[in-house]
Amino acid sequence: MSRTPMVATSEAVLAGGVIAQGLGYVNAWKGKTVVVKFGGSVLDVGAGGAGGSTIAEDLVLLKGAGINAVLVHGGGPEITRMLERLGKPSKFVHGLRVTDAETMEVVEMVLAGRANKSLVSAITQAGGRAVGLSGKDGRMLLARKYEADVDLGQVGEVEAVDPALVRTVSVDGYIPVIASIGIGRDGTSYNLNADTAAGALAVAVGASKFILLTDVDGVYRDPDAAGRADHEARTLISELRAAEAEAMTRDGTISRGMIPKVGACLDAIRGGVPSAHIINGTVPHALLVELFTERGIGTMLTP
Amino acid sequence: MSRTPMVATSEAVLAGGVIAQGLGYVNAWKGKTVVVKFGGSVLDVGAGGAGGSTIAEDLVLLKGAGINAVLVHGGGPEITRMLERLGKPSKFVHGLRVTDAETMEVVEMVLAGRANKSLVSAITQAGGRAVGLSGKDGRMLLARKYEADVDLGQVGEVEAVDPALVRTVSVDGYIPVIASIGIGRDGTSYNLNADTAAGALAVAVGASKFILLTDVDGVYRDPDAAGRADHEARTLISELRAAEAEAMTRDGTISRGMIPKVGACLDAIRGGVPSAHIINGTVPHALLVELFTERGIGTMLTP
Amino acid sequence: MSRTPMVATSEAVLAGGVIAQGLGYVNAWKGKTVVVKFGGSVLDVGAGGAGGSTIAEDLVLLKGAGINAVLVHGGGPEITRMLERLGKPSKFVHGLRVTDAETMEVVEMVLAGRANKSLVSAITQAGGRAVGLSGKDGRMLLARKYEADVDLGQVGEVEAVDPALVRTVSVDGYIPVIASIGIGRDGTSYNLNADTAAGALAVAVGASKFILLTDVDGVYRDPDAAGRADHEARTLISELRAAEAEAMTRDGTISRGMIPKVGACLDAIRGGVPSAHIINGTVPHALLVELFTERGIGTMLTP
Amino acid sequence: MSRTPMVATSEAVLAGGVIAQGLGYVNAWKGKTVVVKFGGSVLDVGAGGAGGSTIAEDLVLLKGAGINAVLVHGGGPEITRMLERLGKPSKFVHGLRVTDAETMEVVEMVLAGRANKSLVSAITQAGGRAVGLSGKDGRMLLARKYEADVDLGQVGEVEAVDPALVRTVSVDGYIPVIASIGIGRDGTSYNLNADTAAGALAVAVGASKFILLTDVDGVYRDPDAAGRADHEARTLISELRAAEAEAMTRDGTISRGMIPKVGACLDAIRGGVPSAHIINGTVPHALLVELFTERGIGTMLTP
Amino acid sequence: MSRTPMVATSEAVLAGGVIAQGLGYVNAWKGKTVVVKFGGSVLDVGAGGAGGSTIAEDLVLLKGAGINAVLVHGGGPEITRMLERLGKPSKFVHGLRVTDAETMEVVEMVLAGRANKSLVSAITQAGGRAVGLSGKDGRMLLARKYEADVDLGQVGEVEAVDPALVRTVSVDGYIPVIASIGIGRDGTSYNLNADTAAGALAVAVGASKFILLTDVDGVYRDPDAAGRADHEARTLISELRAAEAEAMTRDGTISRGMIPKVGACLDAIRGGVPSAHIINGTVPHALLVELFTERGIGTMLTP
Amino acid sequence: MSRTPMVATSEAVLAGGVIAQGLGYVNAWKGKTVVVKFGGSVLDVGAGGAGGSTIAEDLVLLKGAGINAVLVHGGGPEITRMLERLGKPSKFVHGLRVTDAETMEVVEMVLAGRANKSLVSAITQAGGRAVGLSGKDGRMLLARKYEADVDLGQVGEVEAVDPALVRTVSVDGYIPVIASIGIGRDGTSYNLNADTAAGALAVAVGASKFILLTDVDGVYRDPDAAGRADHEARTLISELRAAEAEAMTRDGTISRGMIPKVGACLDAIRGGVPSAHIINGTVPHALLVELFTERGIGTMLTP
Repeated sequence: MSRTPMVATSEAVLAGGVIAQGLGYVNAWKGKTVVVKFGGSVLDVGAGGAGGSTIAEDLVLLKGAGINAVLVHGGGPEITRMLERLGKPSKFVHGLRVTDAETMEVVEMVLAGRANKSLVSAITQAGGRAVGLSGKDGRMLLARKYEADVDLGQVGEVEAVDPALVRTVSVDGYIPVIASIGIGRDGTSYNLNADTAAGALAVAVGASKFILLTDVDGVYRDPDAAGRADHEARTLISELRAAEAEAMTRDGTISRGMIPKVGACLDAIRGGVPSAHIINGTVPHALLVELFTERGIGTMLTP
Repeated sequence: MSRTPMVATSEAVLAGGVIAQGLGYVNAWKGKTVVVKFGGSVLDVGAGGAGGSTIAEDLVLLKGAGINAVLVHGGGPEITRMLERLGKPSKFVHGLRVTDAETMEVVEMVLAGRANKSLVSAITQAGGRAVGLSGKDGRMLLARKYEADVDLGQVGEVEAVDPALVRTVSVDGYIPVIASIGIGRDGTSYNLNADTAAGALAVAVGASKFILLTDVDGVYRDPDAAGRADHEARTLISELRAAEAEAMTRDGTISRGMIPKVGACLDAIRGGVPSAHIINGTVPHALLVELFTERGIGTMLTP
Repeated sequence: MSRTPMVATSEAVLAGGVIAQGLGYVNAWKGKTVVVKFGGSVLDVGAGGAGGSTIAEDLVLLKGAGINAVLVHGGGPEITRMLERLGKPSKFVHGLRVTDAETMEVVEMVLAGRANKSLVSAITQAGGRAVGLSGKDGRMLLARKYEADVDLGQVGEVEAVDPALVRTVSVDGYIPVIASIGIGRDGTSYNLNADTAAGALAVAVGASKFILLTDVDGVYRDPDAAGRADHEARTLISELRAAEAEAMTRDGTISRGMIPKVGACLDAIRGGVPSAHIINGTVPHALLVELFTERGIGTMLTP
Repeated sequence: MSRTPMVATSEAVLAGGVIAQGLGYVNAWKGKTVVVKFGGSVLDVGAGGAGGSTIAEDLVLLKGAGINAVLVHGGGPEITRMLERLGKPSKFVHGLRVTDAETMEVVEMVLAGRANKSLVSAITQAGGRAVGLSGKDGRMLLARKYEADVDLGQVGEVEAVDPALVRTVSVDGYIPVIASIGIGRDGTSYNLNADTAAGALAVAVGASKFILLTDVDGVYRDPDAAGRADHEARTLISELRAAEAEAMTRDGTISRGMIPKVGACLDAIRGGVPSAHIINGTVPHALLVELFTERGIGTMLTP
Repeated sequence: MSRTPMVATSEAVLAGGVIAQGLGYVNAWKGKTVVVKFGGSVLDVGAGGAGGSTIAEDLVLLKGAGINAVLVHGGGPEITRMLERLGKPSKFVHGLRVTDAETMEVVEMVLAGRANKSLVSAITQAGGRAVGLSGKDGRMLLARKYEADVDLGQVGEVEAVDPALVRTVSVDGYIPVIASIGIGRDGTSYNLNADTAAGALAVAVGASKFILLTDVDGVYRDPDAAGRADHEARTLISELRAAEAEAMTRDGTISRGMIPKVGACLDAIRGGVPSAHIINGTVPHALLVELFTERGIGTMLTP
Repeated sequence: MSRTPMVATSEAVLAGGVIAQGLGYVNAWKGKTVVVKFGGSVLDVGAGGAGGSTIAEDLVLLKGAGINAVLVHGGGPEITRMLERLGKPSKFVHGLRVTDAETMEVVEMVLAGRANKSLVSAITQAGGRAVGLSGKDGRMLLARKYEADVDLGQVGEVEAVDPALVRTVSVDGYIPVIASIGIGRDGTSYNLNADTAAGALAVAVGASKFILLTDVDGVYRDPDAAGRADHEARTLISELRAAEAEAMTRDGTISRGMIPKVGACLDAIRGGVPSAHIINGTVPHALLVELFTERGIGTMLTP
């Protein structure tokens, strides 16, 4: 099992350069906190955990390098499937799931019981130590009913965040994995939007970065670019100032499913998080490339 | 809102005596750990949490008095109900639920997603800070397949316990609430007997007491005494040495559902826990009476 | 030596309720400091220590429950007896003992040498760890001559309190027992009023409660009520605002020996102590009943 | 208020040499503990404290230099005077005061109430922080009845020493001043020999030196030398091995009052104290000269 | 100053893989200590510091990643040049510089005054915090005269290593830079072989790796391979067990200047250092490539 | 090897008085920092280190007594000698050495390599633990080019002081020995005036005293007094207010070589150092006499 050394060739020189650059970032982010949102269509929680994604491995490497990684997740498609099995159709208003008491039970079981613990398994298998939590634990995500023109049931919005529990387990070497469920002042469970909850948590823990893993490469100048690979490189936006993002939302360049994602990023930035990133979670080690190279891989929003 | 003082009457003298005795026990258990198993038929997790029980309030009072309370729970009846809703009949062999992959998903959802978070809500409402966990979190309950004469699927037995996470959150003021699910070396989830898991955890955290909350008053000399209130007091056993309990199990005095409970107690005692208690969780503040009065309320097993 | 369990009867339910309430208070007072003044006619220091009182036991229970108990004591009657034995009559002006140098020697010997060490013995016998101190130790009670219309000799008043020594020994698990003797800037010993000294100390250590143990039940609306048991309950005042107490002192409702006691309580309250209590130290566990029940036993003064 | 510098003269050179030597010793004893016994005929506790002695000042300087000074004292002559005033004659058997209950009360009052607090005053006046204690405080000197051929009453001998309280107050910057009174398992007070008690305490606190201040210069080869100044220098023994001291006790060279003093020193040395010193407490700064010069001033006993 | 993101191309995938592997090593070496020897012909200390080498930058990156880097250096050529300027020829016996008192002065000036401080400047310029030391500081390298058949003057060998100072400054975030000069028990300076001194220090600080930076690629099977680039790759040895290295030294495969280098490595390994590496310090970032890639770049010796 | 005790003679009394006074100062300076400047004509660094001076021994005694001693040194004469050996004449403008690149190399070698390490040896031999540093280490003395009417080359002035490294090694028990060399923002070495550098360091470390060791006794009223011993005592100034010193500098009473010394003292005082002292380093233990006696030995400047 002998090593095959690189000798003094261009290969070694190249590797040396990449490592030197990466170490510089390790040094810069060490001791900092990075809140990662994972879920939506990327999350395909099978028996094996994170469904082929390198997210578990990447989080373990981040933690090992001294960066406090915090994972927040939702799990919409899985909830829909379970409701179907129980013979209960999913109903959405303004993109939000109408959540009656029975639906909330299923949401809580699927998110906090199944998706959450699958991610814990995946991180454990990747060599890390994970703690699966929901926003109810340690009263982390205090929520209230989201008031809309129609009654959405137990759909909630974050009222306050208590980051103490995240800090406690982070300091002790665990990666917190948090299901986007909130708790009301009277103990009621609330179904929270995971992007928004993750952004609020990033602000509360004083995160240095907030990273949204999605299934597209980022924000495009040409909203129809997604799916056409050759075109993407030219229209993907690498860096975006908050003001530009707001303008692009108003003029429709940012549209549909990207609106709440960009919105969560903007909330994080306004709350003091120095940068928020929307990247493609299906690319292996996308998280590492975004964090540890100068060029990055997706769209970075800054104040 | 004026107080009505007791003046120097027998009432005050009586109260003084009770408090003096109770404080003596507070002093004795302070800084110690008490592992409480709650569940089975006692656990009726409705929307309100702990179903009329004072368990949540009692745990908060224990924690407030400087005693590290740890709660372990199962949730069999609830699992059966959910499986029924999904059109999947429950099958038991030797009293153990045959757990195929699909059943395990439901077990995990109900225990870690629903029962667990309901208890967290209940403790939060009682003024405490709770963290809902499963044995997978922090790789707390490492499990392996339970080998029986028939294949029971993902029924597991505890292989090793890592108490680090329980200590981390306990030290920081949280009450850990733990669903009896284990994790295999390959990341597989296992369905664990909650009594046994709780006993193993009591040993691993170095608990000073292990308390099983059930729906009977304890161990009876006359196994048919349960249910006949006038008779119970005469045959309920207050203190039981481990050797006696073993003999009573062999001769059939301890029988049926009491066998695994006494077994979990004996395992805890053999592992070094100084005393294990089987008490009636339906009596208000049963936990406090057992811990803070000389007479107690149920059966105490000692080495 | 078998336990006699309470089974599921009203007895257990009652005990559970009392303990639950008491634990709530334990939690509330934990880590707080309670300064207790004991002495005057209650203090009958025989060979056995605290003369039948449960004060030593109560202090040990408080300390055990995590409450920092501090005991301050005087010892007038004992001083008078010793002076008599030495053929020296006691002389009082305005209720204050005229204290020439020879008398001061006796005061110091009786208070710091005899009463103090007897209380230390009593607490030690009750299972606690006590440290007997005077206000000279650690220059705790810096005093100056009390200037009156006649020369009272070494009668002093507190000029400043240094609580450092009380904190040092309290933190280390000891109950400080403090004789009411002060030290002047030139090293002179001063005879201090114990009620006043205790109140000043309560302020300096940031006590949460100041409790005066006397031989009456508290403050009465009808000053002639004392001694007539049936009448007392109706006229004993349970709660008293500082302003009311001041008014009652002016109009004579509070009179004679109760004046300096209420005065010490008012000083403590004005100095920031949230509540001051005058209770009957001859009732067993009066201290515990006052602290750990909602109803209490004597008179509580609040700002 | 201009300084008068020494310029580069022999005066400065001499001072430099003395200081250099002294600092070497400061460095050597820093952080170490020195138990000093003061009392007997040297102690003349007047209103002013340490009766002209520099002991208070010396202890404050030691403490300031980082050496943990602990003072133990008796007070025989003062006890005798107080008993006389109370019309109670002192009775001695084998040099021990027969101590009935009434005598013990006086012993405790005089030692713990008067001598002790006078020394506290003296140290306070010298700029230090002192805490006056007895062997009853913190159950420091656990004692039992001394069994002799005649009943000596409450004369005790040390059974065990708990040095915790001495450490607590020493670490916090106080000089503990300890009256030689013990406490029995049942709370009884015992009259202890101060030399013996001091030696036992020196062992228990792990003292580096045990110093007995007396009114003679040390141990003489010629027991009749004391009092004849010109002769003393030739016969005073500077260093004495334990074995020699034992031989000299057997052959009568060490006799009368010196026997218990040498005995206390030998006990300390056998208990692990590296050196014990008998020096003349009436010489100003004798303690400093013995500790900080190579030549010393009295007799040093070594193992 | 817009970023040019990598999009989801093979480039990003490749970078992700390299970073993932590197982070794994960062995690593995974090908190560990790596002793690096730099010098001989590699060291060309001009005004700019480390003469074009990336050593300063690499050490700063290591330190930033939580690895305790320690640099040891010699400086033979520079010493020779300075001696020449002073008109004093260098004389070598068995490859060791004959070091009379005058030569030793020059050795100390050049190594501790010039080479050392140039390296400190270089590390400072690279963004790190460095402390230049010699083996005399903190009595780090206690040395004695090296006894040979001819008198070599102040040539020394390491007698004992005190790693305390290295730990003090390392823990506080500094990179220690150590000139290979020793101090005798009598304060004499000794000229030490830098390879040997570095190996001894690696053992004493409990280093996880000892790395010798030279101007060849490592150990070759064919000792004549050096200098012929095409041939090197085939004969360079990637991993070498201690026993093999010893055999190769005996049979002459390892010869000339490589003997003391391999010897220092073997000493380090025998002293408990898990691996020692001989690599080419002229390749940019050679240190990083050896530490953070699986393949490495030079020869790794293991037990 | 018997001690010769002092018995109760005037000798002991005298020694006791000196020690008592000295201990008072030990107590006062304990935990404080004293920056000592040593060098110029006093420094004669031979093989033996500090050339007969007691400076090394005095620093070790100070450190042992809990005073943080910091030594700063220059080394002009030695630099001149080395330059001569290299055939390079020294050139001075306004008393400052014109320092071209080649000269700077020699300055660095002599100061940081030779003088510095000789002092480290001397302190080590005196029983202390020393760390030789320059102002480049830990970027302690950030410097910039000193701009004068003529180009002085690498003569620098202190721009900022980072005292972190001095604190790190001081706290850990080492005596820092610092050569007066600074580092520019671009890594350039600068030749600093040692008096000025020492004064700036005294301010930055929050020193309680700044002591300049010279070869005269201090500041004289009559500038011609030096050298005439009998006259000195009368004209040496013991205490000097900053304002007076400024006036005396303006009117010429302070002249020549004393100007920069008094200037460094004034800078230290203006920066918050409570007192600065100019004393005669050739008098044995001058440092101790100045610090530990009331009269002192040289000139003390105060605000």
